[in-house]
Amino acid sequence: MSATEYLQRNREKHLNELIEWLRIPSVSAKSEHKADTAAAADWLAERMREAGLTVEIIPTAGHPVVLGEWRGAPAGAPTLLIYGHYDVQPPEPLDEWTSAPFEPEVRDGNLYARGSVDDKGQVYLHVKAVQALLAEGGSLPANVVFCIEGEEEIGSPNLATFLRDNAERLACDTVVISDTTMFAPGLPCITTGLRGMAYMEVRVQGPATDLHSGAYGGAVVNPANALARIIAQLHDDQGRVAIPGFYDRVRELTPEQRQAIAGLPFEEETLRKEVGAPKLSGEAGFGSIERIWARPTLDVNGLLSGYTGEGAKTVLPARAMAKISMRLVPDQDFHEVEKLFTAHVQSLAPEGVTVEVLALHGGQPWHAEGSGPVFDAAARALEAAWGRKPVFIREGGSIPIVQAFQETLNAQALLIGFGLPGENAHAPNEWMSVENFQKGAEAIAGMYEELR
Amino acid sequence: MSATEYLQRNREKHLNELIEWLRIPSVSAKSEHKADTAAAADWLAERMREAGLTVEIIPTAGHPVVLGEWRGAPAGAPTLLIYGHYDVQPPEPLDEWTSAPFEPEVRDGNLYARGSVDDKGQVYLHVKAVQALLAEGGSLPANVVFCIEGEEEIGSPNLATFLRDNAERLACDTVVISDTTMFAPGLPCITTGLRGMAYMEVRVQGPATDLHSGAYGGAVVNPANALARIIAQLHDDQGRVAIPGFYDRVRELTPEQRQAIAGLPFEEETLRKEVGAPKLSGEAGFGSIERIWARPTLDVNGLLSGYTGEGAKTVLPARAMAKISMRLVPDQDFHEVEKLFTAHVQSLAPEGVTVEVLALHGGQPWHAEGSGPVFDAAARALEAAWGRKPVFIREGGSIPIVQAFQETLNAQALLIGFGLPGENAHAPNEWMSVENFQKGAEAIAGMYEELR
Repeated sequence: MSATEYLQRNREKHLNELIEWLRIPSVSAKSEHKADTAAAADWLAERMREAGLTVEIIPTAGHPVVLGEWRGAPAGAPTLLIYGHYDVQPPEPLDEWTSAPFEPEVRDGNLYARGSVDDKGQVYLHVKAVQALLAEGGSLPANVVFCIEGEEEIGSPNLATFLRDNAERLACDTVVISDTTMFAPGLPCITTGLRGMAYMEVRVQGPATDLHSGAYGGAVVNPANALARIIAQLHDDQGRVAIPGFYDRVRELTPEQRQAIAGLPFEEETLRKEVGAPKLSGEAGFGSIERIWARPTLDVNGLLSGYTGEGAKTVLPARAMAKISMRLVPDQDFHEVEKLFTAHVQSLAPEGVTVEVLALHGGQPWHAEGSGPVFDAAARALEAAWGRKPVFIREGGSIPIVQAFQETLNAQALLIGFGLPGENAHAPNEWMSVENFQKGAEAIAGMYEELR
Repeated sequence: MSATEYLQRNREKHLNELIEWLRIPSVSAKSEHKADTAAAADWLAERMREAGLTVEIIPTAGHPVVLGEWRGAPAGAPTLLIYGHYDVQPPEPLDEWTSAPFEPEVRDGNLYARGSVDDKGQVYLHVKAVQALLAEGGSLPANVVFCIEGEEEIGSPNLATFLRDNAERLACDTVVISDTTMFAPGLPCITTGLRGMAYMEVRVQGPATDLHSGAYGGAVVNPANALARIIAQLHDDQGRVAIPGFYDRVRELTPEQRQAIAGLPFEEETLRKEVGAPKLSGEAGFGSIERIWARPTLDVNGLLSGYTGEGAKTVLPARAMAKISMRLVPDQDFHEVEKLFTAHVQSLAPEGVTVEVLALHGGQPWHAEGSGPVFDAAARALEAAWGRKPVFIREGGSIPIVQAFQETLNAQALLIGFGLPGENAHAPNEWMSVENFQKGAEAIAGMYEELR
C-alpha cells in the first residue's frame, strides 16, 4: 500500500485526531491558557511518537518547542526541517463565531475552529505524511526534524535564541513551512517571495512649546505643516518613491513573471471591494498584484501632532510625528534604505524646524531560489495531488521566521501553504478546507517520494 | 482739584482696595469657587456704588454680570460701555508662584496676584477714573455703563445672550475694553486690529478599515499620505497660502503702517528666543510683526492617523484627519474663506480616497476705525499720561467679545490695554505694573475730560 493509500484509508481518523487537538485552547497570548498551551504541546509530542519520530519537548523562556526527529536516511541524503506552531490566536470576539472556536465543526467541507488553518491543520498534515511513509515503507529518503513552536502568535520572542542554542541539532538543507495561503481553491502554490521592511519614525520639532496660533501664527514655522511637506515629497506624481537611490537595487519583474501574474485568477474589482476603497491606485505601470508582491512601497503608518480631540483648539504645535514604513523587494537592503530615507528626509527639512529620523524596525526581503531538488520534488508532488502545475506566488508582507532560519541555520525556506482566501486566520470563524488537509498530506508524502 | 490730583492723592488707598479685591479667588472655572466668584461681584458692586454709579447685579445662567450706570450726561452726549471681567484664571501650578496667587504682593513696582492684570486691575482703574471725575466735578461728559462679567475666562458662554436680552439698556456708541497689553513699557498703545479665524477639519477616508501594510501596501491609496500631499499644497514656496482667491480681500498694509511697525522697539531675535524655534520664517517679504498682525495664515493645529503609540505597527490606516485653521485679516470674510478652503481641498483630493471638509468655528477679523471723538480723546489722554504719542498696535489672535459687541450692539470697540509684555496672564506669577494701574486711571479720567 502506498503512503497516499494509507492517508486516504485513514482520512476520517486523521481528521478526528486534528479535531481533538483543536479542542485544546492553546492561546499563547493569555497566561490563563498556559496549561492548555502545554497540553497542546504534549498532545502533539505523543502523536509524533506514534508517527515514528523521536520526540523531545524543549523548554524556552516562554512556551516550549516540540522537537521531533527521524534521522534514518542514507548518508548524503538531505535534511528537511519542518517548522510550524501549535499555539493559536485569541478567539475574541466570541459572539461572532457561528460555532464555538474550540468546538470544531465541519460545515460545507470546511473545518471551523480557532487554529484549524493557522497552524495546527497545516502542521498535522506533515505529521501524517511522515507517519504514512514510515508505516508503509519504514523509511524516508531524507532526515526530518520537526520544530513546532508555541509562540508564533506572540511574535516568536524565543525562537531566534532557540535556533542559535540548537543550531547543530537543527542543521538542515531546507526549512519547509506550511503557514501560508493558496491563491485560489484548487490552485496549488509555492510562495517564493516576501517583502522586507524599513520602519522609520520622523519627528519634527518647531517651537519649544505649543504656542497660541493667533499670537504667533504666521511668524513661526509650523512643524505639522513642515512634516506634511516632507511626506508629500517622498512620492513623485507617478506614485513612485522619490528617495534618491531607492530603486537602484530593485530586481525588476521578468516578462515571464509578469505573464504568470497576468494569468492568475484575479480581478482588480474584487480586491477593491475587499478593501472598500473608492479606487485602487499605486505606482504607475503596474497592476495591484505586482504592486503588492514585487514593488517597494512607502506608507505612512501613523501621524500625530497638536490637538486631535473634538472641536477647535488654536494651537501651533511644538512638534509633529510620523511613522513611515517602506516595504522592500529583492535585492534592496533595509540598512541601506534606512540610510537613504534618513538622508533624504533631512535634506527636505525646512528652515525653522529640526528633524529627527529614527529607524524602528527592519527586515530583509526574501526570494526563493525557485529550483533545487526539494523545491522540484515539492512542485511535482503538488501537481500530482491537485492535477495541475503549482503557481509561484509571493506575499506582500514579511514572515520574520523565514529570515531567522535563513540567517541562523543558513537554510533555504520552502513555503507551501494549504490555506485558502477568506480562511479567517486571526478572525472569528477560522476554517481549513478538509480537502486541503487531505491533499496537503498526500502532497507532502509525495514530496518525500519524489526525493527517493 | 482735578481728577488727576484726586487719583494721585488716593494712589495708595486705591492700590490697597485692588489688593483687597485680588484676595478673593474668583476662579470661574471651578465650582468650589462659586461663592468666591459671587463675593468678587458683590465687592465690585459696592465699590461702584461708592464711586457714584447705580449698580445692579444681574444673574445669568452662570456667574452674574455687574452692571453699573451713570446717565447724567447732557442730551446728545455719547454713551460709553466699559467691558471687563471680574473672574480669573485658575492659579495652578501653585508651586511655581513666588508669592501665593491670592496673597497680593508688590515687588519691584509690580503687583503680583492672580487676576492683577487680567482683568481686575484694568477694570478697577476705570472705576477709580469715574469716581475721581464724579468726586471732583460731579459729572461726566458721557453716559457710562459698566458691564463687568464673571465668565470671560471660561469663554463667556452667557455673554451673547446677556447682550441680546439687555440690548436697549446696553446701547452705546463705543465699547471701551482694557484687557490687552502695551507693546513695551512706557509706550502707550491702542489696539486697532484683531485677526479673524476659519477653523476647519479635513477628514480623508481610504479603505473601509485599517489594513495590513504588507498585504495591501502599494495597491491601496494611503489616506495619511494623501492628507500630507493635500496639506503640502496649501502653501506655495514663498510661504503664501495657495488657496485661489484667498488674498483677494486682504487689505494690504500702507507704507505708513509698515513704517510705524518698523519703528517699534522689536527684535526678531527676541521673538525667536521667546518661542524657542531654531529660526523664524513665514510669508516672504514681511517681518514677524507684520506676519502676526496683518497677514493671514494657515496652520495645522492637529494631525491624527493610524498608529501613534510606541514602536512599529504596520497599519495602512483607513483614515487621516487634520485640524487646520486660518487667521484672517480685514477685509477677509470667514464664510467666504471656508468655502474657498473647502473647494480647494476637494480639488486636491487624489483618486482612491474621499475627502470631507468641516467648518468647525469662524470669526471675522476686526479693525478699528482709528479716529472719531472717543478714539481721539483716548489718544490725547494717553499722550498726556505717558508723555508720548500712543502707537496703534494689533493682535494676531481674536477677542470674540469684540465681535459680540459689534454684532449685537453695533458699537465700535476701543481697546486700550495697560498690561505689559511678560505679565504672565494665565500663568504663574501674574503681575500688573503699579505705575500702569495709576497712569491707566489717569489716562481714562483724561479721556473723559477730553470729551467735554
